[in-house]
Amino acid sequence: MSRRQHESGEGPVGAVQSGCLADGIRPFQVMEILARARQLEASGRSVVHLEIGEPDFPTPEPVTAAAIRFLADGQVRYTPAAGLPELRERIARFYRDRYGVTVAPQRIFLTPGASGAFSLVLAAVLSPGRRVMLADPGYPCYSNFVRLYSGDPHAVPVGPEQDFHLNAALCRAHGGGEVPLAISASPSNPTGTVMNAAVLRELVEWFEAEGGVFISDEIYHGLEYGRRSASALEFGGNAFVVNSFSKYFGMTGWRLGWLIVPEAYTAAVERVAQNIFISAPTLSQHAALAAFSDQSFAELERRRRAFEVRRDFLWEALVKLGFRVPVQPAGAFYIYADCSALTEDSAELAAALLEHEGVAVTPGKDFGVQAPERYLRFAYTADVPVLREAVERMRRFVGG
Amino acid sequence: MSRRQHESGEGPVGAVQSGCLADGIRPFQVMEILARARQLEASGRSVVHLEIGEPDFPTPEPVTAAAIRFLADGQVRYTPAAGLPELRERIARFYRDRYGVTVAPQRIFLTPGASGAFSLVLAAVLSPGRRVMLADPGYPCYSNFVRLYSGDPHAVPVGPEQDFHLNAALCRAHGGGEVPLAISASPSNPTGTVMNAAVLRELVEWFEAEGGVFISDEIYHGLEYGRRSASALEFGGNAFVVNSFSKYFGMTGWRLGWLIVPEAYTAAVERVAQNIFISAPTLSQHAALAAFSDQSFAELERRRRAFEVRRDFLWEALVKLGFRVPVQPAGAFYIYADCSALTEDSAELAAALLEHEGVAVTPGKDFGVQAPERYLRFAYTADVPVLREAVERMRRFVGG
Repeated sequence: MSRRQHESGEGPVGAVQSGCLADGIRPFQVMEILARARQLEASGRSVVHLEIGEPDFPTPEPVTAAAIRFLADGQVRYTPAAGLPELRERIARFYRDRYGVTVAPQRIFLTPGASGAFSLVLAAVLSPGRRVMLADPGYPCYSNFVRLYSGDPHAVPVGPEQDFHLNAALCRAHGGGEVPLAISASPSNPTGTVMNAAVLRELVEWFEAEGGVFISDEIYHGLEYGRRSASALEFGGNAFVVNSFSKYFGMTGWRLGWLIVPEAYTAAVERVAQNIFISAPTLSQHAALAAFSDQSFAELERRRRAFEVRRDFLWEALVKLGFRVPVQPAGAFYIYADCSALTEDSAELAAALLEHEGVAVTPGKDFGVQAPERYLRFAYTADVPVLREAVERMRRFVGG
Repeated sequence: MSRRQHESGEGPVGAVQSGCLADGIRPFQVMEILARARQLEASGRSVVHLEIGEPDFPTPEPVTAAAIRFLADGQVRYTPAAGLPELRERIARFYRDRYGVTVAPQRIFLTPGASGAFSLVLAAVLSPGRRVMLADPGYPCYSNFVRLYSGDPHAVPVGPEQDFHLNAALCRAHGGGEVPLAISASPSNPTGTVMNAAVLRELVEWFEAEGGVFISDEIYHGLEYGRRSASALEFGGNAFVVNSFSKYFGMTGWRLGWLIVPEAYTAAVERVAQNIFISAPTLSQHAALAAFSDQSFAELERRRRAFEVRRDFLWEALVKLGFRVPVQPAGAFYIYADCSALTEDSAELAAALLEHEGVAVTPGKDFGVQAPERYLRFAYTADVPVLREAVERMRRFVGG
């Protein structure tokens, strides 16, 4: 055997072993779009980015200021695994103020992004082979997470007639005879649709009656442009709720989310947290306290209104271009547009829009197997002038 | 069914479902010690903490300063899933400078703590039921991680005669006829022992010859008080290496680690990273660039020497008290002391030391099933006067 002390990693051995958990994870189509967009930009072409699921606003000023103050004494130690006690308290108060729900701080776990929250809850509820119902189209990481934790993701087709959301009847039909388990997100990524409160109530109550597990992904809460989303917690204490500082609070890179768990699960979830991440980022937790200040909320409300203006602009423009948007996109910052009047293959259209007009969007493929060729996801994470430029470019390409 | 809109989480339903992945995770004994220590402190008792695996030094000043500079413009966005390109480059240079090894930056993934690195590598290499060999005693999170990812942790008893480390012969004997897979840490937690470079070389080469997977946990590298640890990368490019900014660099709460993967695994690992954490904390990544400055290294060297002085003091004192420390603790900040001359049950001794003398230490139980009742782990994450106080209190209790 050769000793390759100075040629680390160049050896012929070490092919990936097949059958590993990572095999179950498909690459995202949007990554190819992004890579190609960067190539084009590197060659001097202009690209308008409507593919990015990240708010374009900077961190709210009070949060940054709090982080700088905290750094002054340099003590960036581990926090308890469940998170900073004062932040757990503050989030509990947020639920009182915003949803009229009492949540014991002991049920609130700070996590490294909402991703960390999904790791926690899935470890706490999954057993090998357990079916997890997911809306299709939906956020693609769910099924990958479920497979990593040896569960069995089960796509439930949803369409305009369900506002692209799960409901109790669908879950009853798709439960496969098991104690039901589902993840549901409202506002939805990719559709931006908001679940009706009555539908959510029925879901929460049905899962509770069945002794099942309902996981409510509420990371786009606060970004609604009509009625506010209800929290699953308003309808019972046995739902798990995932939320995050990334979207509404504009703190993506801080990697901070939270998980609210039913009382009975707190001990198990704390054990998992101690093992899989020790604690969420300390500085982010201290800074996040300032995200709940009046000054911060005022800024976030200005941003919400800016998103609403963008939504109005882009929705109208897309419809004029020949896209169909059958359900009002009333939350998050996405429009899931039916392009079947323009093409038979949305992935092809996405590639062509990028290649010919420098407009980057995400094809439906990334969000499931339910008619993905009919849809494109547009993210309005850019200001109106940029959206207008994108629309003009698309008009050149598709006519209209 | 009752509608408990304002009594979230208080319902009778929602008992934990058994058989879930979290069931495989034992609570840490040290958490009970910590909880009791806090109770005692709350009642006015003084407790000396020798149970904590976190350096007591603050973040190096250049790192904090870099973070404050970066915050000035408030753009704390996601980084690429694999991490900030300039930090991947800087870590590659660190491997050239410190180990004389060339590592392509494309093989380096920034992760939320070393914990994130373990999630990545296990998802990339494990398949359900796959055996993972682990030194016993060892870091307890390994086996919990392996179980979460549906692998089969296999404890390999190691003792003073192996410097408490795995070696190729042991792995050959314990492989169970499968393609071998092991996690090994040097310096070791809990024993503080440093693996001989020849043993590491043989391990890396044997795993490579077998087409197996060797995961080298190098998070305590840099904290050595004699010869420096060799990196597994010095002996081949097919080992996975986990490292972190937490211990040597003194940046625990920043939650930043890294994983170095063989070339063949980069695509799979990137897919997993995109799904399970999106990106490591952005601010921490920018700040970490400053951890490699001359000023930072000078400070870290002062700290290393301070740890060495503490090690010398505590080791000598423990031996005088009647503990046996059969292998020189030459790294990390732990001494794994054999207390069998003093007690038949180290957990009982730990509880008594806390109760009667206010000295908190971690019983061997937390580190495996290999004679845990003979051992206590002492962490010298406190300065010499504090250690002296602890030793005096223990002397009162055990005599000597």
